[in-house]
Amino acid sequence: MGQADQAGARERSGKTRTDHRVRIDFQTEPTRYRHWRLKVDGEIATLVMDVDEKSALFEGYDLKLNSYDLGVDIELADAIDRLRFEHPGARALVLRSAKPRVFSAGANIRMLAGASHAHKVNFCKFTNETRNGIEDLSENSGVKSICAINGTAAGGGYELALATDYIMLIDDGSAAVSLPELPLLAVLPGTGGLTRVSDKRRVRRDHADVFCTTEEGVKGKRAVEWRLVDAVVPGSKFEETIDARAKEFAARSPRATSGSGINLMPLSRRFADDAIEYETLSVELDRAARLATILVRGPATTTPASADAMTAQGAEFWPLKLARELDDAILNIRLNELDVAVIVFKSSGDANDVLAYDRFLDANAQHWLAREIRLLWKRVLKRVDLTSRSLVTLIEPGSCFAGTLAELPLASDRSYMLIGSRNGDNKPPAAIALADVNFGPYPMANGLTRLASRFLATPGDLERVKAERGKMIDGATAQRLGLVTFALDDIDWDDEVRVFLEERASFSPDALTGMEANLRFAGPETMESKIFARLTAWQNWIFQRPNAIGEDGALKRYGTGQKPAFDTRRV
Amino acid sequence: MGQADQAGARERSGKTRTDHRVRIDFQTEPTRYRHWRLKVDGEIATLVMDVDEKSALFEGYDLKLNSYDLGVDIELADAIDRLRFEHPGARALVLRSAKPRVFSAGANIRMLAGASHAHKVNFCKFTNETRNGIEDLSENSGVKSICAINGTAAGGGYELALATDYIMLIDDGSAAVSLPELPLLAVLPGTGGLTRVSDKRRVRRDHADVFCTTEEGVKGKRAVEWRLVDAVVPGSKFEETIDARAKEFAARSPRATSGSGINLMPLSRRFADDAIEYETLSVELDRAARLATILVRGPATTTPASADAMTAQGAEFWPLKLARELDDAILNIRLNELDVAVIVFKSSGDANDVLAYDRFLDANAQHWLAREIRLLWKRVLKRVDLTSRSLVTLIEPGSCFAGTLAELPLASDRSYMLIGSRNGDNKPPAAIALADVNFGPYPMANGLTRLASRFLATPGDLERVKAERGKMIDGATAQRLGLVTFALDDIDWDDEVRVFLEERASFSPDALTGMEANLRFAGPETMESKIFARLTAWQNWIFQRPNAIGEDGALKRYGTGQKPAFDTRRV
Repeated sequence: MGQADQAGARERSGKTRTDHRVRIDFQTEPTRYRHWRLKVDGEIATLVMDVDEKSALFEGYDLKLNSYDLGVDIELADAIDRLRFEHPGARALVLRSAKPRVFSAGANIRMLAGASHAHKVNFCKFTNETRNGIEDLSENSGVKSICAINGTAAGGGYELALATDYIMLIDDGSAAVSLPELPLLAVLPGTGGLTRVSDKRRVRRDHADVFCTTEEGVKGKRAVEWRLVDAVVPGSKFEETIDARAKEFAARSPRATSGSGINLMPLSRRFADDAIEYETLSVELDRAARLATILVRGPATTTPASADAMTAQGAEFWPLKLARELDDAILNIRLNELDVAVIVFKSSGDANDVLAYDRFLDANAQHWLAREIRLLWKRVLKRVDLTSRSLVTLIEPGSCFAGTLAELPLASDRSYMLIGSRNGDNKPPAAIALADVNFGPYPMANGLTRLASRFLATPGDLERVKAERGKMIDGATAQRLGLVTFALDDIDWDDEVRVFLEERASFSPDALTGMEANLRFAGPETMESKIFARLTAWQNWIFQRPNAIGEDGALKRYGTGQKPAFDTRRV
Repeated sequence: MGQADQAGARERSGKTRTDHRVRIDFQTEPTRYRHWRLKVDGEIATLVMDVDEKSALFEGYDLKLNSYDLGVDIELADAIDRLRFEHPGARALVLRSAKPRVFSAGANIRMLAGASHAHKVNFCKFTNETRNGIEDLSENSGVKSICAINGTAAGGGYELALATDYIMLIDDGSAAVSLPELPLLAVLPGTGGLTRVSDKRRVRRDHADVFCTTEEGVKGKRAVEWRLVDAVVPGSKFEETIDARAKEFAARSPRATSGSGINLMPLSRRFADDAIEYETLSVELDRAARLATILVRGPATTTPASADAMTAQGAEFWPLKLARELDDAILNIRLNELDVAVIVFKSSGDANDVLAYDRFLDANAQHWLAREIRLLWKRVLKRVDLTSRSLVTLIEPGSCFAGTLAELPLASDRSYMLIGSRNGDNKPPAAIALADVNFGPYPMANGLTRLASRFLATPGDLERVKAERGKMIDGATAQRLGLVTFALDDIDWDDEVRVFLEERASFSPDALTGMEANLRFAGPETMESKIFARLTAWQNWIFQRPNAIGEDGALKRYGTGQKPAFDTRRV
């Protein structure tokens, strides 16, 4: 048993892990927040970080000095989503702290020291996704963000600031930004920190080197000169400057909405031991076979008559409800079902109904709610891409992988499609259908659509499938067009699929994670994809190294008064 | 002690590691090859892989079926260099095997299973650099390459093929290409395999998924359809097709040389316990402080009178000799001095003499030898960028960091420059000088020059320093221009440098490796940088995971008849 496993065992003895089936829940709402307050005053939204140190997700640590764990970030992600859907009139966002002289001390060190390897990796992935969401809110929803740093912003605290558009640092002689992970803990600023320093703020590499190895960080004029913050502001002018900047950002925002937001009602979920029933999908767990099957159901009703009718439906509007439920289902598998090797996507419904919803969203593309729903789908699909489980879609009679739902087979490592119908089955033959939405609104982290990534070698094939938009494409044609991996007759189906699923469960989980992380993202890299590739992979490596996680390593010895003992060999 | 460390301990008991100071030597020459034969017949060069199974670098394994270890790759890298310098008339390269029905079985599994983590990582890095060199030979020297696969090309064998321009597979009903690393060994095809499949050959991702999880690989028509090879050729036509393709490639090659090559004479090196004396540089090891200081010496003679005179000097020509010696020095530190935390670059000589050599190479840029020397420098400097040790340049009085040598401070994580002269020292004051060569010929793996990477945020600063070409820039000016990290007075110098070096040696070696791998490569990614970032970092992670390297892991259990036992949790 490696050291990471021992850490996992220790963690499982913690308060929420004594029963290892206790679920980490990603659903919350503002009235239940313990760590954040979301205030919206006209065009200006303010997110106040005020972490309740006694409300940690696990036992064994207190969330002092606005340090955070996954529970804190779940609230932050929820708040950002509510800003999008419940407050469409907000045009600028201020992030700040309620603690005196501290913005945030970053990820809680005791939590990291005690967490299993899988939890550390999943924690970093989710927090990265949340920060990417803040950037997407700025870029695509027009809500520019300001981080008002009233004191210490260390490690993950500064990384959170890096996700905003404008970093203000109070100039009080002691307030500083820092990335002390390396000198203090022998790990990396892995929540995008290194990448955003080099690629977003474009800090000169030698300055970045000095900054990332200086435990106390950088303050004052040098922080501005080195591009680490956008402004240092005297304490006496701090509040008025925040107000002025926020108003400027709001005035320049392209976000133009009339009317009020919708209410993101709590999801309706029924949990059984081996299943979760949502309203628009079901999750079925076969733990012995290490499979999770997500059955997505097409819409039960026709499209609303108008954008107003869509707004009136609110969270009940099928594409929105499905996106939220799919997101929750994926996160649940990621964090709570570590043994699942393969996620199997299936669907049931009428492909034409799905296409009708996509046409409805296309027709209302300028409406704020339609835009936010498409942006949510983009993020959920990226979450699927970044889920370190093998992904397969089974396209069978009666399924509805059309338009937006056709992204699921395209996001999968493989897809299997039945040719025609099953013997004695009266369901319509398996078909897949593309729509405009498959050619633009849902880019992957690499900036390309899934179809463009798929046909990188043969752009002509991309044009060829584009010509098939709106058609019901049968199995043989789909295979010929390159849309599915294998099209199979009924007679071969069961064996082929079974052999694949068994094989996948027999392989090394780690090697699959590494292989899939490479093969899913061909072509260009973006800052976002660099964070999940270069930075994350190096961080995961370090999270396995005794110099960090060993009994004598820096994470374990932090706070004990003992210096870490390092294996000095460079690798 | 982690499992990787135990592996290291076991390895050190092997034949060349009983004394852990036994050096891995990167110098060889064709008459000493045990594994390859380089034949040049007019315009066509052929590299025949014929691995001597009894000539492994370490004890404990035989190099059966053209499997390879670092020793095999050192010869390959040497052969490619000789092709460049000794055979400038070669215009096409054929890679093939002398073994019946086997091209290559890839990296030797027993070697991998027994190697320390550091050796595995360094082995993959060097083999990656060699394969990048084959691609550079094609792209920049006009020598297109063909891989003629006469049977099995598995794992690293196929990865070697992927580095060529044209892959021919014999069609004999059994010959196949495969990447069996994942199903067989629970590791990745980490010598560029996954990246070249997805980004160079642009294999569709689901086909890549099937290919990389199919132990026996893909053969015949499917191998072509899936873009894994360029042609399958019947055995009866194999030889004539190789000839025909090679002649076609040679005919289309832009490589136009008159005259014969130069002789890459063996390097002259004198080894002491804590130093290596080359002709153009010295390496000094302070093992207690974990420092290696590389003192580069400027030219002792003026530039040759003509290109012919340069050719007559051959391997004695200063820029060529220095590049070869610097490459050897870096590789020696990487593989043989694992405890070195920091490489300190220093120089001595006349900056104007260095600039004169750069002007000479500029003036002869169309000459084959000048071009090959610049390409060699490009690769050596990339090797520096990719060396996982902290890099610092000290720019002191009497130094000559000018033109090509100015790339060393630019490649460093930090640079320190003395302002003016030292008290009582009659050396000329410290200066740095730029030249045309700093603005194009030496791109990093990300495709940008070091200066362009440095000034990513402020392209105006790039133009500003461009205007200073040819000038001797003093410390204060260099700092103002952003060319050095810190310019210091004599009075501060010793303390500042000492504190930095001590601090660096005190940090976690792993965290430094991860940080530097992130901060050194801002901006765009290329296939090359993706290999060293995404793929390598994931592979290194997997090389730490018990599922691969644990006692029950796949690497350790390979060949024992026992199946590996996996921790099934996905991370």
